[in-house]
Amino acid sequence: MGTPLEGNAIIGQSGGPTAVINQSMVGVVEGLRGKPGVQKILGARHAVRGIINHDFIDLTDIGQDKLDAIARTPSAGLGSSRDKPDAAYCERIFEAFRKENIRYFFYIGGNDSSDTCRIVNEMAKQQDYELHCFHCPKTIDNDLVKNDHTPGYGSAARFVAQAFMGDNLDNAALPGIKINVVMGRHAGFLTAASMLGRRSPADGPHLIYVPEVAFDEDKFLADVDKVFTERGRCLISVSEGIHDADGTALVTKLAEDVEKDAHGNVQLSGTGALGDLLSDLIKKKLGAKRVRADTFGYLQRCFNGVVSEADASEARASGRKAAELATSGDIDGSIAIVRKSDAPYTVDYERIELSDVAAKTKTLDPKYIVDGNNIDESFKKYLAPIVGDLPPVETILY
Amino acid sequence: MGTPLEGNAIIGQSGGPTAVINQSMVGVVEGLRGKPGVQKILGARHAVRGIINHDFIDLTDIGQDKLDAIARTPSAGLGSSRDKPDAAYCERIFEAFRKENIRYFFYIGGNDSSDTCRIVNEMAKQQDYELHCFHCPKTIDNDLVKNDHTPGYGSAARFVAQAFMGDNLDNAALPGIKINVVMGRHAGFLTAASMLGRRSPADGPHLIYVPEVAFDEDKFLADVDKVFTERGRCLISVSEGIHDADGTALVTKLAEDVEKDAHGNVQLSGTGALGDLLSDLIKKKLGAKRVRADTFGYLQRCFNGVVSEADASEARASGRKAAELATSGDIDGSIAIVRKSDAPYTVDYERIELSDVAAKTKTLDPKYIVDGNNIDESFKKYLAPIVGDLPPVETILY
Repeated sequence: MGTPLEGNAIIGQSGGPTAVINQSMVGVVEGLRGKPGVQKILGARHAVRGIINHDFIDLTDIGQDKLDAIARTPSAGLGSSRDKPDAAYCERIFEAFRKENIRYFFYIGGNDSSDTCRIVNEMAKQQDYELHCFHCPKTIDNDLVKNDHTPGYGSAARFVAQAFMGDNLDNAALPGIKINVVMGRHAGFLTAASMLGRRSPADGPHLIYVPEVAFDEDKFLADVDKVFTERGRCLISVSEGIHDADGTALVTKLAEDVEKDAHGNVQLSGTGALGDLLSDLIKKKLGAKRVRADTFGYLQRCFNGVVSEADASEARASGRKAAELATSGDIDGSIAIVRKSDAPYTVDYERIELSDVAAKTKTLDPKYIVDGNNIDESFKKYLAPIVGDLPPVETILY
Repeated sequence: MGTPLEGNAIIGQSGGPTAVINQSMVGVVEGLRGKPGVQKILGARHAVRGIINHDFIDLTDIGQDKLDAIARTPSAGLGSSRDKPDAAYCERIFEAFRKENIRYFFYIGGNDSSDTCRIVNEMAKQQDYELHCFHCPKTIDNDLVKNDHTPGYGSAARFVAQAFMGDNLDNAALPGIKINVVMGRHAGFLTAASMLGRRSPADGPHLIYVPEVAFDEDKFLADVDKVFTERGRCLISVSEGIHDADGTALVTKLAEDVEKDAHGNVQLSGTGALGDLLSDLIKKKLGAKRVRADTFGYLQRCFNGVVSEADASEARASGRKAAELATSGDIDGSIAIVRKSDAPYTVDYERIELSDVAAKTKTLDPKYIVDGNNIDESFKKYLAPIVGDLPPVETILY
C-alpha cells in the first residue's frame, strides 16, 4: 500500500441531524487517531459551508471523556447544512482542501450527502488531487440502498414505537380517532416502526399509510370507518410523504406557496397541516366527533434520551470503519451496514462504491405492506434488533 | 374510630391520562388491601361512565407482579372519561353505589374531577349514604391549588425538557426559527419546563410564552426578531393556551367551529393550528425563511418510557395515602403533595378538603416570569427534583 498519504482530515455532518450522528463523527475521529500520515482532524462547521468558509473545529486533541459525551449528544455536533454544492461551490471546496492540505474527507449523511461526496471525489480524481473520500451512512428515513438499515433509523424508530405504545393506551382510555404523522418523504420505514409495540390487533396503530402506496381518500375513509365501527376507536399512522396516484404529496394540496430546499425537496415537516387536513376530512366525511391529529415533527430525530443502543454502537462502528479504510490505502467509498444474522443479531460494515449509494432511494419491501393500509407482523423480525427492547406495557381495560 | 365501614371500593381515573396515573390507582389498591371492612376493590371502566353502567374491572385479587406492571404502564389503565355528571347522572352513580354496596370511592383526576368528587361526596351526605370519598391528584398541567406539584406533571415536564434539549441542538445544527407548542390551558408550568435543560442563554428555548401573560403579537414579533438578529436562530416555547388581553385563546381565532368538551373547555390539543398560525405570522411579518412549528400534542402525557422516578413514586404514595386515610375513620378529602425541603428533596402527603381543591386553578408564580417572554433560572430549583436528572449533552459548535 506504499507510503501513507500525509495531510489533514475533515469531517462534515450533513442533512437532517439524528440522535446518533455524533457517534459516527466520534467513530471517525477514533479511527483516524494514531494513523500514520494523519495530522490534524478538523470538523467542518455546518458541513460544506464550513469548508468553503474555512470554518473548522479542531478535533485532534479532544480527550476521550469529552469525545464520549459528544457521541452521546443528539443532533449534529459540528452543525449541518442543506447546501447542495454546484460546480463553483465544489471549486471553493477544493481551494480549501488545497490550502488546508486536506487529504481525508469524511461526509456523514443521507442520499443527497452521499451524492455530494461522490461529486467531490470525482472532481479530486479529475484534478489529480490525492484525496481519500468516505461517506458514512446516516438517515432516520432508512432509505439508503445496499444498507440493511442506516444509523439514525434505530433511534428514531424507537421514539416512534414508544410514542405509539403510549398513544395507543391514551386512545384506548379516551376513545376516538387519532392520526399521528410520522417523518418519511419517500420511504415508509419510520412510519412502519409505529407497529413495533403492538401486542395484538386490538392495539393501535390499526391503520398505517406509507408513501410506497398511492393514497386514496375514499379507501382511507372506508378503512377508518371500518376500524372505528369495529373497535370504537382508531389509531392511524401516516407518513408525511403520502401522495396521490400522480405523485403529488397530499400536504402540497393545501399550501399556498410550497417551500423547497436546495435539493428540490418540498417542506413536509415543521407543520401540522397534513394531520389537520386528514382530521378535517374524517370529521366532514364520516361525521366523527373526537378526531385528533399529532405530527411528531423534529422530536423524532433528536429527542434527548431515547436512543437505540444498537443504533448508537453501529453508528460509531461505521464511522470508525470509514476512517480505518481511508487510512489503509488509496481507497474511497461508502460504508454499508450488512446484516449477517437475525439471531444472534450481528452486522458487518462493508465498503461499497460511492456511486452505489449516491442519490438512490430504498423503499419498504412490498412484502411488508398489507392491503395498502397496514404493516405485516413479520416486519418486527427485521426491526426489533435495530430498536432494542421496548418498555413493556400491561393492560386490563382490553 | 368505631367499627370500620363494611363494603366495596371503587376507583376511577378521569380526564386526560398521564404517564403515572396507574401508579396512583395501584397505590389505592395497595392501600386498601387487608384493611378491615374493605371487601371488593373495583375499577370503574371509563370513570363515572363505568359506574353508571355497572362496568367494572375487579382489582381485588390481582397479583403484585401484575400490579407493578400496570403501575409502570402509561395512560389510564381503567379507561377515562370527560363526562361531567349533572344531578341526574349523580343519581345514577348513587343507584350503582347502593346496588354494589360501594362505601369507598376514589377518583383520580384534575380540578374538574375533584369537583365531581366533591359533588358526589356532598350528595352522599345529603342522602345519609355513608361513603368515604377521596380525590387523588393527577394532572400534567400542575394546576391544582394546595399542591406543591401534582402527579403526572414531573413525567410530562421531563418529556418536554428532553424534547427541548434535543430540539435546541437540532435548531443549532440547522439554524432557523422554531416554535414548539406545549400543552397547558390556563397554567404555564409545562411550557416553563422547556427551560430545564438550558445550560446558558445560548441554549434554547430563547423565548417562552405562557398563558399567565396576555399574548401580544407585536411584542412577540419584536422578541423573535431581536433573538434571531442576535443569535442567528431562535427556539420558542409556547403554551397551547396563550390568549390575547381579552382572554380569547389564539387558536380559536382560526377555527371555523370550535369544539368544546362537557366541561366547556375549547379543544386546544390534537391540532397543529396554533403552531402553524405563529409560523405564518413570523414568515409574513418578519420575512424569515426557515420557520418551523411542532406541536408536542398527546406525546407529552403518555409517552412510554420517559418517566420521572420521583413522579412515579409520589403518584403511588398519594394513592396509598388516600386509601389509608379513607379506611382510617369517617373521613373524606383530597391528597395534596407538600414539599418539606428542597435539599434533600422531601415531600409529605396531606389531607385537604375537597372544597379546597375542587374546580380551582393554580397558575405560575409571577416571580418566575421574566419580561413576559421567558422563565427565570430560579424555576429550576423548584422543577429539577420533580423531574430528576436529565441526560447530559456536550456541545462543540457553540
